[in-house]
Amino acid sequence: MSSDISRIYLDNNATTPLDDRVKNSISEALNLWANPSSNNENATKAAEAIAEARNHLARMFNVENDGVVFTSGGTESNNWVIEGAIQTARKLNRNEIPHVITTNIEHPSILEPLKRREEFGEITVTYVSVNPLTGFVTSQSVNDSLTPSTCLITIMLANNETGVLQPVEEICHLIRDKLKEKSPFLHSDVAQAAGKIPIDVKSLGVDAVTVVGHKFYGPRNGALIFSPRGIRIPPMLLGGNQESGWRSGTENTPMIVGLGEAARIYNEGYTNIESVLRQNRDYFEELLVKKNLRNSHVIHFLGSPRLPNTSSVAFLDYPSHGCDLLEKCRTFYASTGAACHKNECSPILKACGIPFAIASKTVRISFGRSTTLAQIDTVVEELEKLCSPLTENDF
Amino acid sequence: MSSDISRIYLDNNATTPLDDRVKNSISEALNLWANPSSNNENATKAAEAIAEARNHLARMFNVENDGVVFTSGGTESNNWVIEGAIQTARKLNRNEIPHVITTNIEHPSILEPLKRREEFGEITVTYVSVNPLTGFVTSQSVNDSLTPSTCLITIMLANNETGVLQPVEEICHLIRDKLKEKSPFLHSDVAQAAGKIPIDVKSLGVDAVTVVGHKFYGPRNGALIFSPRGIRIPPMLLGGNQESGWRSGTENTPMIVGLGEAARIYNEGYTNIESVLRQNRDYFEELLVKKNLRNSHVIHFLGSPRLPNTSSVAFLDYPSHGCDLLEKCRTFYASTGAACHKNECSPILKACGIPFAIASKTVRISFGRSTTLAQIDTVVEELEKLCSPLTENDF
Repeated sequence: MSSDISRIYLDNNATTPLDDRVKNSISEALNLWANPSSNNENATKAAEAIAEARNHLARMFNVENDGVVFTSGGTESNNWVIEGAIQTARKLNRNEIPHVITTNIEHPSILEPLKRREEFGEITVTYVSVNPLTGFVTSQSVNDSLTPSTCLITIMLANNETGVLQPVEEICHLIRDKLKEKSPFLHSDVAQAAGKIPIDVKSLGVDAVTVVGHKFYGPRNGALIFSPRGIRIPPMLLGGNQESGWRSGTENTPMIVGLGEAARIYNEGYTNIESVLRQNRDYFEELLVKKNLRNSHVIHFLGSPRLPNTSSVAFLDYPSHGCDLLEKCRTFYASTGAACHKNECSPILKACGIPFAIASKTVRISFGRSTTLAQIDTVVEELEKLCSPLTENDF
Repeated sequence: MSSDISRIYLDNNATTPLDDRVKNSISEALNLWANPSSNNENATKAAEAIAEARNHLARMFNVENDGVVFTSGGTESNNWVIEGAIQTARKLNRNEIPHVITTNIEHPSILEPLKRREEFGEITVTYVSVNPLTGFVTSQSVNDSLTPSTCLITIMLANNETGVLQPVEEICHLIRDKLKEKSPFLHSDVAQAAGKIPIDVKSLGVDAVTVVGHKFYGPRNGALIFSPRGIRIPPMLLGGNQESGWRSGTENTPMIVGLGEAARIYNEGYTNIESVLRQNRDYFEELLVKKNLRNSHVIHFLGSPRLPNTSSVAFLDYPSHGCDLLEKCRTFYASTGAACHKNECSPILKACGIPFAIASKTVRISFGRSTTLAQIDTVVEELEKLCSPLTENDF
């Protein structure tokens, strides 16, 4: 690991830097230290700042203000959805084991809570496989997985490693058309998509989405955002009835204000944000083709709808695995989806049907809002050097 | 509600201001935006800052570093303990309904999750009553409540309204002596005591304590702190295996750093902190006696071991209820434990056996580290005016 902090940062799907305006908003909101439930002037100011943040989030996802429930992050939101949907199902029918449909490429904060409950015999789960040709699940395969006990369908909007968009809207409409008011709770983890592409919760057709601040230049908290259609799961954290009873716990005012500011910034410039990300990603992918890397690399799911900022690229001429390649890189940071062992590759890529030999040489490049074309030139130049077949330079 | 933000703040049990050093540490840590699990320099710095914070917390509560698990706050910690202890019990014996022992004066983040599970028939609960003469439960009454199905005993160390300390250490030793390795999980919510009196998790004899930053000049996050004895409950939030698997979710570096700084500040000056709090509280209570309020006020549980900063005082000569009194005060902020209705009083005071006529006239004064004796003079002067029997000034 280099000690050069000025490297080009191309791991924005892991976390983004804080926008300076977000940073300032948090620092200022540290002065709003009063308990928002108290009866004093600072408390009122804190409550107002939270209300404003809620408004920005509601606008970002096209929901009502009361649909926004602030949480400590995506992991809490996802665990809550699973716990809540199962609890509701149990209450409705105590004798039936609830069934959940998800995909085999979800974030661990979806897969792990499901697996634990499955192991304990509390639920059954169908992990719908993505089509290895496209990287996304089909609405038909989700539909085919429905059972009378299905209480939850949770499908991410964009995969964090491949960037491939899943047909959440199509799935929701298919399920709702078929099951009407008997539809299971429909959830989408939009952590990786939010702040990169517009997300309209109403037209998506979901009951709730998971949102995470630090994936779009905001802080490390998040939200569970409910559709105005009004179907909810019971709260997971009980206590002082904050967030209108949906999530107890004294409000973390500075974090909430920061998340609101990140949403405000996105609302203000979303068209430009998306086009900058896409421009960078496309420039990078075109450059790979133009350079000597032609025929020696594979961009996964190039033909599928993808996030505008993510390239999942296998460098086939590189003699070792992706982690090894990244360790050699000196100009930029990126990541692979797996621990750095020769015999391992990303479980997500494996689940996408990518053969081990290719998956193990794959690197995820995730561009940010401030990535420049000149930086991409530098990065591709280094990749070109490292991935070229042996030349005299190697001797 | 006045708009005078310079009022004397005597509601430190609701929340404390952020210590300026905590505020600065958070603002600086906003620069440590990298994902601590990533492999780059900023990530290493973030991980190191988190490790340092963990060390301060471990020192504050006399546990090993790996006993400190950062959470989003006390509500999460308390909900986790309940969920985890019940889950463990169910795993051990599927046919038995788990039993929990707690008190009738716990925080809502203990009482509400218990009540929900009780309503659903998932558990049975014994709410041990505090002795109305002392304001605390006896170890005997806890002992008498034990059943073979008891999986959790959760008893707060200090009550947030009365400030009365509960005999947690005595209870733990009694239970452990009796049940040995078959003891249920022993938990104490020390949210209100931490940062006011020293807490030694080892000698307290508990398996875990709930800690909340914003009660001791830290931020709105918290921790669940496990004893080195090594008995743990399973994690509640699953996903990316952060916090050594005990609490998943990308670490909220700035909040964790701030909590660590609050612990460091306490560790540095805890003797002085406690004596300042006690001096203020004692001065206030003596002044009430010296002034015209003699015989017209009651300090609840004056003879019991109490937090050094909390006075729960009923102003008997005041013609209306406590909320009304506080609304008339212009020099300071304090609180009552209940909504401002004539027919309601704090459920905690009610549970402590305080008659309605007295409980409804009760105000909680909670002093802070920077309260001055001169401020207390001002406060008592105003209280004296408002609570004196009618004089010519009222005509």
